[in-house]
Amino acid sequence: MCQFCYIGRPNPFLFEFFRRRFHGSVLYRSLPVPRRHTPYFGQPDYRIYELNKRLQQRTEDSDNLWWDAFATEFFEDDASLTLAFCLEDGPKRYTIGRTLIPRYFRSIFEGGVLELYYNMKHPKESFHNTSITLDCDQCTMVTHHGKPFFTKVCTEGRLILEFTFDDLMRIKSWHFAVRSHRELIPRNVMLSQQDPGMLDQLSKNITRQGITNSTLNYLRLCVILEPMQELMSRHKAYALSPRDCLKTTLFQKWQRMVAPPGKRAARKQATETQRIEFGR
Amino acid sequence: MCQFCYIGRPNPFLFEFFRRRFHGSVLYRSLPVPRRHTPYFGQPDYRIYELNKRLQQRTEDSDNLWWDAFATEFFEDDASLTLAFCLEDGPKRYTIGRTLIPRYFRSIFEGGVLELYYNMKHPKESFHNTSITLDCDQCTMVTHHGKPFFTKVCTEGRLILEFTFDDLMRIKSWHFAVRSHRELIPRNVMLSQQDPGMLDQLSKNITRQGITNSTLNYLRLCVILEPMQELMSRHKAYALSPRDCLKTTLFQKWQRMVAPPGKRAARKQATETQRIEFGR
Repeated sequence: MCQFCYIGRPNPFLFEFFRRRFHGSVLYRSLPVPRRHTPYFGQPDYRIYELNKRLQQRTEDSDNLWWDAFATEFFEDDASLTLAFCLEDGPKRYTIGRTLIPRYFRSIFEGGVLELYYNMKHPKESFHNTSITLDCDQCTMVTHHGKPFFTKVCTEGRLILEFTFDDLMRIKSWHFAVRSHRELIPRNVMLSQQDPGMLDQLSKNITRQGITNSTLNYLRLCVILEPMQELMSRHKAYALSPRDCLKTTLFQKWQRMVAPPGKRAARKQATETQRIEFGR
Repeated sequence: MCQFCYIGRPNPFLFEFFRRRFHGSVLYRSLPVPRRHTPYFGQPDYRIYELNKRLQQRTEDSDNLWWDAFATEFFEDDASLTLAFCLEDGPKRYTIGRTLIPRYFRSIFEGGVLELYYNMKHPKESFHNTSITLDCDQCTMVTHHGKPFFTKVCTEGRLILEFTFDDLMRIKSWHFAVRSHRELIPRNVMLSQQDPGMLDQLSKNITRQGITNSTLNYLRLCVILEPMQELMSRHKAYALSPRDCLKTTLFQKWQRMVAPPGKRAARKQATETQRIEFGR
């Protein structure tokens, strides 16, 4: 009996996939449910494998459009990403919204990373009505750094992902809590350094808990800027002055508080917000 | 247009998979070919992802049966595995047959390896009549070693795999040509060593071209013993003396040379060989 790929026992994800897709159709009953080694549909860890493959395809030329496409492929429109870790001055926890996710991943590479992938050991899936949760207590974020020496940084922690259970299988929430990190250097680099200055450089960590300074700065900036995003979008979309942006935003917030809009009004509101976001 | 997962263009593997499965049936035409992100069927790199997952599940208690099941899951009955690398005294090349494959993988862990996985960058697939070839010029075999210090060994080279193109998608031939290897040690381990004896130990490679001594010894043994395998199988199956085994083997080989058997005889021969192999 195979623990992993449901050989010899029903795969609930596979079953659910076919049920949703073919329920009520003639196909459903006569569909040849794969017998073995094709338990791909609905297995959330394959999506992380695909995410790793996509990250491999990044080049120096990958621009904002590339990163937007990356985020669109793997993250829901209302996704959020949380990173928790402990620095010298205490625990940190950063949560960013969907629009900031592309630049989060980009910031990792801007910090001197040449390669990035996630390695999951014994991830656990759980299946809910409209989502699948993947909980991996032994996840390693591996990054390769080129300067000043080749360094491989392994950031270990718990990764909890929530996927929407549909054809696209995109991530609704990403939560990575860093437990520890390890910076690995090639044996031969260490041996070839006789210069004390170089040895000193060799001894310094190049990340903080596996996170580069550029990512750390980006996350700090996000926390400051995210609440101001509505104001900035309004400024760009309507060319209002900052003061007027603040006024109209506050007025709309107050309106919503005193008279919660009906269904139709709410929909109009949502459409407008979306337009403003895309207009950035 | 996605290079990797055939978004926006026909996936030849997927097409071939459905063609073979449903050709001539009503299903074939009405089958809902997945539109996106489900190009799993027939993608050979997923099989290596699965092989990695299976290797993760190995424990200290994994016995011969476990390794036999592992090999049966991923390798054809007539598979072969070749490892090529360069030692101080010149290039080496070892090819082993199917029966020796389980112990090859086992020997890696017996050499002190705690974890083993293969990481492929930009693998190329090509599709033949009855097989799929995966050619990866940037394959890294990653092994984690615990003693004397935590060490991560990255063995880089070209991996060429030939898969049988059927439901099981098993490997017919595995060819790994090692190009280089890197032994990585944690920065903090290096810094904490002030004792010259320990530093000396730290400077020594624990593998030869990424291959542990136990695997190297096993491969050398295989080359000596594999030609004798027929004799040993015969000895076990019929309880003949070594001299008689040699006699009957030579007689049969001579018989085949002077009078190549017809189809029926050949089939009988094959069945017998198989029985002997399983009777080891």
